[in-house]
Amino acid sequence: MNYRIISSILSRILAIEAGLLLAPTAVAAVYGESLSPFLWTILISLLAAAVLYLIGRKHTGTLHPREGFVSVTLSWLVISLVGALPFVYSGAIPNYISALFEIISGFTTTGASVLPEVEVVPKGVLFWRSFSHFVGGMGVLVFMMAILPTDDEHSMHLLRAEVPGPVKGKLMPKMRSTARALYIIYLCMTVVEVVLLMCGGLGWFDALTTAFGTAGTGGFGVRNASIGAYSSAYVDVVVGVFMVLFGVNFNLYYLILMKRSLKSLKSQELWVYLAVIAGATVTIALNIAHLYSGFVESLRYSFFQVSSIITTTGFATADFNLWPSYSRALLVLLMLLGACAGSTGGGTKVARLVIVGKAIWAEIRKLLFPRSVSRVTLDGERLEADAIRNTMVYYILYTFFALGAFLLLSTEGYDLETTFTSVISCLSNIGPGLSLVGPTGNFSIWSGPAKLILSLCMLLGRLEIFPVLTLFASGVWRRKA
Amino acid sequence: MNYRIISSILSRILAIEAGLLLAPTAVAAVYGESLSPFLWTILISLLAAAVLYLIGRKHTGTLHPREGFVSVTLSWLVISLVGALPFVYSGAIPNYISALFEIISGFTTTGASVLPEVEVVPKGVLFWRSFSHFVGGMGVLVFMMAILPTDDEHSMHLLRAEVPGPVKGKLMPKMRSTARALYIIYLCMTVVEVVLLMCGGLGWFDALTTAFGTAGTGGFGVRNASIGAYSSAYVDVVVGVFMVLFGVNFNLYYLILMKRSLKSLKSQELWVYLAVIAGATVTIALNIAHLYSGFVESLRYSFFQVSSIITTTGFATADFNLWPSYSRALLVLLMLLGACAGSTGGGTKVARLVIVGKAIWAEIRKLLFPRSVSRVTLDGERLEADAIRNTMVYYILYTFFALGAFLLLSTEGYDLETTFTSVISCLSNIGPGLSLVGPTGNFSIWSGPAKLILSLCMLLGRLEIFPVLTLFASGVWRRKA
Repeated sequence: MNYRIISSILSRILAIEAGLLLAPTAVAAVYGESLSPFLWTILISLLAAAVLYLIGRKHTGTLHPREGFVSVTLSWLVISLVGALPFVYSGAIPNYISALFEIISGFTTTGASVLPEVEVVPKGVLFWRSFSHFVGGMGVLVFMMAILPTDDEHSMHLLRAEVPGPVKGKLMPKMRSTARALYIIYLCMTVVEVVLLMCGGLGWFDALTTAFGTAGTGGFGVRNASIGAYSSAYVDVVVGVFMVLFGVNFNLYYLILMKRSLKSLKSQELWVYLAVIAGATVTIALNIAHLYSGFVESLRYSFFQVSSIITTTGFATADFNLWPSYSRALLVLLMLLGACAGSTGGGTKVARLVIVGKAIWAEIRKLLFPRSVSRVTLDGERLEADAIRNTMVYYILYTFFALGAFLLLSTEGYDLETTFTSVISCLSNIGPGLSLVGPTGNFSIWSGPAKLILSLCMLLGRLEIFPVLTLFASGVWRRKA
Repeated sequence: MNYRIISSILSRILAIEAGLLLAPTAVAAVYGESLSPFLWTILISLLAAAVLYLIGRKHTGTLHPREGFVSVTLSWLVISLVGALPFVYSGAIPNYISALFEIISGFTTTGASVLPEVEVVPKGVLFWRSFSHFVGGMGVLVFMMAILPTDDEHSMHLLRAEVPGPVKGKLMPKMRSTARALYIIYLCMTVVEVVLLMCGGLGWFDALTTAFGTAGTGGFGVRNASIGAYSSAYVDVVVGVFMVLFGVNFNLYYLILMKRSLKSLKSQELWVYLAVIAGATVTIALNIAHLYSGFVESLRYSFFQVSSIITTTGFATADFNLWPSYSRALLVLLMLLGACAGSTGGGTKVARLVIVGKAIWAEIRKLLFPRSVSRVTLDGERLEADAIRNTMVYYILYTFFALGAFLLLSTEGYDLETTFTSVISCLSNIGPGLSLVGPTGNFSIWSGPAKLILSLCMLLGRLEIFPVLTLFASGVWRRKA
């Protein structure tokens, strides 16, 4: 394990975080709020960065996969440990563990909150909270790669550990320029959403924070009633559609722009994703029709919620906890599924479902017709046995972690629906769950240790399990392997 | 698809069922009850057997894997379709769909019931209900192989489709003699349990039916309060210990008897199974201690319930639905896990957990140290990539079916805990679930279509999914493949 190279990476991350903290500081200044929570945090961030810089100054050698994994996981931990401080210093969340939960929820774009009321929280802190979604959405390290000079081999191992999804081959070669292009797409889409929201009557603060929550598929809002507070069909549709757009694999946008052709739209994942959204929207609308005045209205609420949950954003325009069993059950399944690979969304990803579905079919054919040859392909390309096995392992690990965390949290004695959906919501980076952690509830019910377990779930979900596990693998921490 | 050979197999199955029906007929005679429900069923069974015999009389050719799978699945369907009739004719369950649910629950050794009260049901019918556990426990087809002459190649494909568990290599060669030996072990253990229960004061009827329920890890009782009705610590311990014994891989007993050595006890699956039972028993006992007078009493109830659920029997001595969240959550996890491969129990099997756990570990090592070679072994023998992939596919299919059935059943509007545990209980062949289908509830709440879905789950669980799926695979039904 090359500690110096890891220190050097963490040092850069903290320096970047100090820079990012200038944004909420400015917002606090605009609203005439106390700047000290942010200034203290910036100071601590810079001091820690300096110490790590000195340790990592003379790093030599290459970055092995294990160091890539460890760096990524530690980066997310370190920015969260520092990023939690403004909540504590401002008094918004006095308890450090709770503040840590909140900021991990922010950076991992989960959106699960311990705050029963957000409208009483200072604007600067609320801005930081929503901004963390935007920063976490594309991945802190992709961001670093986009702006800082590093050689491509290093970046490869970092990207492999961070970028979500099972398929990432195509974009590897010119990584830095690709990362930059992805960020530009991300930024432009966010700006368009802000403009559209302001056209709908939202002030710049609400528009900006809502767009951050959408872009990162995070879900922190600045109103107690989430997006429902705006009571506007126009806002619902804008946010709903943008959630769907941010849940699409960004590589598609990139390829469409680069090749100036729509051929990339022939992605199987994309069409399964859209079909699931359409199917879920219509059936839920039918299921909840009796609760609203007409099918069009129930379609509005259904589409927003389906879009919010499948993209793992977690915004709400209705208390879906009060919806009938079918709607709630389907929303839980969408929580497990999540958005497309390579998007800012969480969950197990539509691409994995497609791959595993095909692999299962091949397995059954093999069993029935032992002499037949069955290949598993995605978008015309053959999938290697390694990729398929890795996808299956991912599913099983996801299930094991979900069940393990469920058992640990059950010791707190809440009902099983609250307990299970709390875990799923964090592991898939959604935000709300059902029952006590539904859209009108919050995660403050959980004890400190439970919040730490749920925070770990959020990190496991965001980093897709493997990088986090490496921290616990024996042999990784040896100086030479 | 060779229809004649399948007809011939189904004909034998029905003839055997007619023979088996003589047992409850005798019991009905002893209790002076009406014999007509059984005599009519025997007549129908024999008529159907005769028709199928005529169709399959001149079968030629060999039994392909696909025909093996189809035969097994159809066998279970056919004996259930006929086996449901005594419930209808006796008036115990007038609705045929409900009766079908009940007998599928019996043959698949699930033990989920639609009867709110069992003590009012005629003894002959109750006997048939419990006897179906005993018949289904070792597998109807294993039974057929044990008593009827067929050549070994045919049997191989049938056994592959029916015997539970991912590992079945060792016992293949001398299949018929092995099947016979397994049946003798099964029979002897049942007889010992009957004797021990009669020593504990149970009458022959209660002792016999309880032993049937234990041996098949089924769980149908003949008292409304299940085993709790006997209010005897002795009975609790006897049944509890025998459930654990019937949840062990029968190959172990066979190997111990054949080799006259205890070396086979070094099975990793066995020790994980026992460790899980011990761990779950102690932690649940601690969790429920405040509900009972002292730790020893809570240990008694905890052990019985853990043993009953992990072996997928489903007997109850307490209403565990009223236990705290941790106990209920852990029982749900034990439902998913199930007993050892090659036992009469259901669930996903401890062996699969061991294999998948090792495969995941190998995957992580490979990711961290790409050049390292990692093998997955079980009890010292290397597992092939095919076996590992098949195990993973099984897990994922189990999850997909559980979630799919959950979504379908959610349309009936019951709470999600009832809905989810109903599905798990049927898919893992347990019997009771939680909430409305807890130990004091029953499955009569579900509509006809829901009962059919749950019946399909029971069959999927008992036959370990793949054989049932073949019925729906295109290409299987073609005359020549």
